Amino acid sequence: MSSTPYIHRVHYYETDKMGITHHSNYIRWMEEARVDYLKRINFPLTRLEEMGLLCPVLDVDCSYKKVTRFDEEIKIYVRLAEFGPVRFTIAYRMINAATGEVVCTGSSRHCILDRDYHPVRLKRDYTEFYEMMMGQVSESFL
Amino acid sequence: MSSTPYIHRVHYYETDKMGITHHSNYIRWMEEARVDYLKRINFPLTRLEEMGLLCPVLDVDCSYKKVTRFDEEIKIYVRLAEFGPVRFTIAYRMINAATGEVVCTGSSRHCILDRDYHPVRLKRDYTEFYEMMMGQVSESFL
Amino acid sequence: MSSTPYIHRVHYYETDKMGITHHSNYIRWMEEARVDYLKRINFPLTRLEEMGLLCPVLDVDCSYKKVTRFDEEIKIYVRLAEFGPVRFTIAYRMINAATGEVVCTGSSRHCILDRDYHPVRLKRDYTEFYEMMMGQVSESFL
Amino acid sequence: MSSTPYIHRVHYYETDKMGITHHSNYIRWMEEARVDYLKRINFPLTRLEEMGLLCPVLDVDCSYKKVTRFDEEIKIYVRLAEFGPVRFTIAYRMINAATGEVVCTGSSRHCILDRDYHPVRLKRDYTEFYEMMMGQVSESFL
Repeated sequence: MSSTPYIHRVHYYETDKMGITHHSNYIRWMEEARVDYLKRINFPLTRLEEMGLLCPVLDVDCSYKKVTRFDEEIKIYVRLAEFGPVRFTIAYRMINAATGEVVCTGSSRHCILDRDYHPVRLKRDYTEFYEMMMGQVSESFL
Repeated sequence: MSSTPYIHRVHYYETDKMGITHHSNYIRWMEEARVDYLKRINFPLTRLEEMGLLCPVLDVDCSYKKVTRFDEEIKIYVRLAEFGPVRFTIAYRMINAATGEVVCTGSSRHCILDRDYHPVRLKRDYTEFYEMMMGQVSESFL
Repeated sequence: MSSTPYIHRVHYYETDKMGITHHSNYIRWMEEARVDYLKRINFPLTRLEEMGLLCPVLDVDCSYKKVTRFDEEIKIYVRLAEFGPVRFTIAYRMINAATGEVVCTGSSRHCILDRDYHPVRLKRDYTEFYEMMMGQVSESFL
Repeated sequence: MSSTPYIHRVHYYETDKMGITHHSNYIRWMEEARVDYLKRINFPLTRLEEMGLLCPVLDVDCSYKKVTRFDEEIKIYVRLAEFGPVRFTIAYRMINAATGEVVCTGSSRHCILDRDYHPVRLKRDYTEFYEMMMGQVSESFL
């Protein structure tokens, strides 16, 4: 399931005066793909919020391999790279759909908090989410 | 006091592949200038929020006169064009600081609501704000 | 054909601290829908650029009817409201797909220039595009 | 000189529905601070472009320490962390001006290319820039 990519088509307003996609947008595409991923594993962000869970970003990193341009279709593959009781890491691989080239790789690390920004006992109190996530951890983008 | 412009310098990430400022950013600059204006008349947005007042945008319009480019300094003049018991209109005039040319004009119309999105009796319940705003209405940017 | 809406799902990064979509994003969605519309009538922006035509924005206006929120699906209907030898106007109507309510209406006015930012003789020099556009003018979003 | 921070005040449109600054904006603030830094060392981006030099981003990383909120003043300290013949790394430390707390740290790595995206012989062909940068490398933000 995690092998279905999220598709983002580069918007005109995402380009900059070099004629290419501005680098800050890839961080936003990572969020788009993450939101889509959580939906596909049946824990959309809105459901997590209703459950009282927040997953703020602790760190991001992004490595730009090839430029992308207006209207190009980008396939974004997502995998859960690490998952522990209080933190998880999502990795991203972005491919230019037309050329098959990797254009960007990145990752985001998140913690899991309740509405009052306190740590939660995920395994005990959110067992279904915990187990789904444990089963999703993967070392490759297959 | 309203004749002091707000200054915005065009950021690299605000340009697009035409090499100019993307038109959507001027709507954001209008907000920056509006936030600054409310601060200068001693009713910063954070104070209005503490008072329980919200001023959501009802309409915006924007007319692009001249392109602007990376790192250009833009002077944004603000005036309260209309003010009534439930709505107000702010007008904006943007000048390229280097050339003196008008690059953009626009306006935003706002309503005034309480935290529950209900209309308020501004004159009766928020007299100080009401009177300050009444005194600010101006037909020109001088 | 113009009755097929463009779909935009509200991104997390498009929300603001009021918990709703920030009003500046609708201007960007208008661009997304316009790009999609030009593609559907077989004159995608990239083709127009290859033909040497630019369509910079002269004015935009936007009227906010209902708030929208994270992950809501927005249908954006586009119609060519006016088309003349040097200018055209596109109108937009945005519908919350779940409720059917109109959330926003707007328009953008554009001029048609060559690469050197000079006016073009559209009817004479770009007949195919001129006639396609003439046939697209519509008074309603049907 | 590099110890003078660049100031960014959080804009309303930079907040998200969690009520805090959306994490993607810090990448843009890094660019704002970098543009300002190059200006202060007398090699503004526009001058580098006139010299025929481009400095595209190869990687970014960003570590979020504390949330920031609307209208907070953020001091961004910049230092040239590494500088070699074809690449350099800039490090960023962001401080909440009111509390003195570190809110974010990050870095961006850049390569130096000519207008045709080819590597340049910086030391030989752009000696003044090369020597200025060599003298700027610093291990701390003081």
